[in-house]
Amino acid sequence: MPSLLIRNVRPLGASPVDLLVRDGRIAETGAALSAPSDAAVEEGAGALLLPGLVEGHTHLDKTLWGMDWYRNEVGASLVDKIENERAFRHASGHDAAAQSLVLAKAFLALGTTRLRTHVDVDTQAGLRHLEGTLRTRQALRDVQQIQVVAFPQSGLLGRPGTAELLDQALAQGADLLGGLDPCAIDVDPVRSLDVLFGIADRHQRPLDIHLHEPGAMGAFSLDLILQRTEALGMQGKVAISHGFCLGDVGERERDALLARMARLGVVLITSAPPSRSVPPLMACRKAGVTVLGGNDGIRDTWSPYGNPDMLERAMLIGMRYNLRRDDEIDVALDTVTHAGARGCGFEAYGLEAGCRADLVLVDAQTPAQAVVSRPVRKLVVAGGRVVARNGVLQADVASL
Amino acid sequence: MPSLLIRNVRPLGASPVDLLVRDGRIAETGAALSAPSDAAVEEGAGALLLPGLVEGHTHLDKTLWGMDWYRNEVGASLVDKIENERAFRHASGHDAAAQSLVLAKAFLALGTTRLRTHVDVDTQAGLRHLEGTLRTRQALRDVQQIQVVAFPQSGLLGRPGTAELLDQALAQGADLLGGLDPCAIDVDPVRSLDVLFGIADRHQRPLDIHLHEPGAMGAFSLDLILQRTEALGMQGKVAISHGFCLGDVGERERDALLARMARLGVVLITSAPPSRSVPPLMACRKAGVTVLGGNDGIRDTWSPYGNPDMLERAMLIGMRYNLRRDDEIDVALDTVTHAGARGCGFEAYGLEAGCRADLVLVDAQTPAQAVVSRPVRKLVVAGGRVVARNGVLQADVASL
Repeated sequence: MPSLLIRNVRPLGASPVDLLVRDGRIAETGAALSAPSDAAVEEGAGALLLPGLVEGHTHLDKTLWGMDWYRNEVGASLVDKIENERAFRHASGHDAAAQSLVLAKAFLALGTTRLRTHVDVDTQAGLRHLEGTLRTRQALRDVQQIQVVAFPQSGLLGRPGTAELLDQALAQGADLLGGLDPCAIDVDPVRSLDVLFGIADRHQRPLDIHLHEPGAMGAFSLDLILQRTEALGMQGKVAISHGFCLGDVGERERDALLARMARLGVVLITSAPPSRSVPPLMACRKAGVTVLGGNDGIRDTWSPYGNPDMLERAMLIGMRYNLRRDDEIDVALDTVTHAGARGCGFEAYGLEAGCRADLVLVDAQTPAQAVVSRPVRKLVVAGGRVVARNGVLQADVASL
Repeated sequence: MPSLLIRNVRPLGASPVDLLVRDGRIAETGAALSAPSDAAVEEGAGALLLPGLVEGHTHLDKTLWGMDWYRNEVGASLVDKIENERAFRHASGHDAAAQSLVLAKAFLALGTTRLRTHVDVDTQAGLRHLEGTLRTRQALRDVQQIQVVAFPQSGLLGRPGTAELLDQALAQGADLLGGLDPCAIDVDPVRSLDVLFGIADRHQRPLDIHLHEPGAMGAFSLDLILQRTEALGMQGKVAISHGFCLGDVGERERDALLARMARLGVVLITSAPPSRSVPPLMACRKAGVTVLGGNDGIRDTWSPYGNPDMLERAMLIGMRYNLRRDDEIDVALDTVTHAGARGCGFEAYGLEAGCRADLVLVDAQTPAQAVVSRPVRKLVVAGGRVVARNGVLQADVASL
């Protein structure tokens, strides 16, 4: 791979530097670097330089992105949505391989170089969505790091055979095991979590558990999860997605839970929905809990909202937590950059020498302005390779 | 003004029609209309047709839109923000005339043909912001209807002379009188509201009152406002902006307040902030209270968020109220279209024959898709005149 010299960029708004990429990594940053003879040169023209954006929680396999508009007429309950989706996919022949590829590429064009996606595993679809999403992971492996979570969207206990499918999913290459509401969906929290942690332990894989349960019920489930994290030595290997309950319970109970999460290295992943309670971002960070941002589903049968622009997600997170000062908006951006990478365990992340060269150039004076105005991505570099200009993928990437 | 024939557009997603504009009004819609000899013809190509968008609550005079990024380092309280802004404007020479014009034009380019703006009137700036904003209203009068609210941002009672300034503001051409938190800011709710309603009554102008006060305090102020609305015969002439308290109080108290509001024709205007309690949209509508959407401030010293795209505001309103079904998202759009116009009292609004020809064409299959995807405005027509194409103002409008 040829070297790449990017001139005159401002890392996270700092003073202008040149940045040299060699073998897919950042080799050096500094003033007026000289270009190696084999280097391609890109003129940054004073653009703001961000590290590649990180999507911490989405569902590539569900999306209808790029398809005809889906008229949503589904009922209000969680079970309505789960059943509607399963029926729609069965009837429509929705193709998880094709759709996950379309959306992953759209993420890449907008600067997201690492993402974690939950993939439905259930007794109706079997491992079809997993196989489709693994094909996307493979197709994009040089330009986008995708973590695949085998996710029991229809519950773990309710449909016999699901646990075995999850077991197979991990054997076939899923990176993590997913979970879902052990009280509200599985209605047997101890058995649900024992089965779930059992599978994770057997495969020595991390867990990422959807916990929508509100208030005391959610806090109860969270306590059970933290107990098992400790007992099985899974410190640093468990993520809670959503965790709405942490926005419901009293401050004393919440802080006790956050202290345990911090001690066990359990991270929180939020889409910061404006219509629900959310974990208190600043209190989580103060307690030492890493908080990541994500879209959740994007234009699917659940919801038409969400899109592959992680700067927009950072903006929505900023608005949800009423982050108005520049230093506060930097925190919103952190949830989809450094904290996102740290929480997912993506390695060699950042703008320092030695990091993987995942880079995004935008016209903005400061990171806060980039979040609020979501400017065109002038240049996206992934693994040292120019993959998109002005929001459009390069032809060789678009054809992957 | 020449006639205009727009071919092949789908009004709010209905079947394709042609639409004939004559003398600035919609003359006729129907299949395969023939073009009058003087008519310009625009090919809609099956685009979705929306009526001109309506901004129900913004602050054109405060905005830093298009200026260098403002680094926000202000404190958290309302008074911090008010004083910071007054000091910034005094020190920076921020020009309300120039800035209101920049932002109003940006609104127009994105399809907003009617808007209501609150303009600061205080003893430091006097009527300077008002005069600047009235110049913008005048400059754009043929293409954008702007309602100007004379707004005591620094309080009505605290700085002697403010009431007299508001009086002058109405005499000089402000369309409405504004108010602000009679308990929390003026700390003398009865006297504050008596003075305010007195001015409105003397000038026979409508009122639009910022009510940020939460919970019981806000409900108390709202009750005082409703009493005076009735006593002074101001039915149909009072708007409550924000009204956070309606999201705080119990259902019984809330419904009693909503029933009184509906009876008195008092409307609600919301930006649907995700970090605060908000009036319950569906309950308000069910009670017969008109709810309008607005940005509130846009990129100013208060907050960097907000922008002149009212489809984005509709999306944020949809997300805030968890509106996912297509028929629900139509309600979000209504807050920035028909309900917006009705609540502000903008006349001749809509897509029927006889309405002012304020039209927006976008590529979307349905109104819900337009809200969620916020597509490029292919064509914006205001008062029968093409004012923007693909998000860019026509030269003759840009130079106004």
